[in-house]
Amino acid sequence: MPRPLTSVFLGLSLDGCIAGPGGDLSFLDTVTTDPPEDTGFATLLRTVDALVMGRTTYETVAAFDPWPYEGKRTLVLTHRPLAARAGIETRGGPLADILEALGNEGVAHVYLDGGDVVRQALTADLVDRLTLSWVPVVLGKGMRLFDGDLPTRCFKLEGTSQFPSGLAQARYVRG
Amino acid sequence: MPRPLTSVFLGLSLDGCIAGPGGDLSFLDTVTTDPPEDTGFATLLRTVDALVMGRTTYETVAAFDPWPYEGKRTLVLTHRPLAARAGIETRGGPLADILEALGNEGVAHVYLDGGDVVRQALTADLVDRLTLSWVPVVLGKGMRLFDGDLPTRCFKLEGTSQFPSGLAQARYVRG
Repeated sequence: MPRPLTSVFLGLSLDGCIAGPGGDLSFLDTVTTDPPEDTGFATLLRTVDALVMGRTTYETVAAFDPWPYEGKRTLVLTHRPLAARAGIETRGGPLADILEALGNEGVAHVYLDGGDVVRQALTADLVDRLTLSWVPVVLGKGMRLFDGDLPTRCFKLEGTSQFPSGLAQARYVRG
Repeated sequence: MPRPLTSVFLGLSLDGCIAGPGGDLSFLDTVTTDPPEDTGFATLLRTVDALVMGRTTYETVAAFDPWPYEGKRTLVLTHRPLAARAGIETRGGPLADILEALGNEGVAHVYLDGGDVVRQALTADLVDRLTLSWVPVVLGKGMRLFDGDLPTRCFKLEGTSQFPSGLAQARYVRG
């Protein structure tokens, strides 16, 4: 079986932060609306068979109530024991191997979540679809998505959108 | 006189670099078309009375032939002597003072160019209009626009555009 299609869908500040210092996500408040804007994330979630996220992202998301990915197969990449909620799987080792194993199980489309997994995926050239939604703020400091040394990766722009909240979105596929 | 309106208009990689290592601008080649796309930069240039740029940016731009800003008043921020082409002015001191002096001379609209000047302007809250055009590449390493510690600055999204070259543009005003 081929490895699954992979999608990344992240919100970030204009200076590329996916969280403020200490993982502070309050910068997202300015673009959180009720009802939520249709940024395409709900549609993406419906089309993926599994989520793969790092431990930090899992622990952040697990603090939400209710768990936002109910009914969706979720794998957490970690090398340490994790007291995870029922149904959550853990995996260690290279992302390429994990995706290959998922492909062999018939998983066709995986959502890669969190800065660490996205950096691993970029490094291993495993990002097929990349959607970035910029929050209209320069945070100035925080946790950068594209941190550290990464290889150069080219993408192809599929489209842009603007939202009343101020989100600016660009959708890319592998270049 | 009030200080002039300030505009920033920059191209950057998805990971926020305005140049690769050593000032390499070749990542812009992928979005350089003939004829050039109408990204709004030519229109902006027509509406500004003066350009303010840092020394590094000046030296980069001065290597171009012909000088792309012919007939436009240009100030270079530097504290060291500069063997500049005829007509180029140099200034030292805080950006706020330089802009105030320009306002007193009747200058209404200034284009702020280059990473160093933009960071100074963000720090001093002197950015009125901010247009970012993302090149569809993760460079992985290079000179980041939003480098170092900056204060948090909010903007208001005015619109987004996509271009056939793959540029994704978002236009902001002071938030």
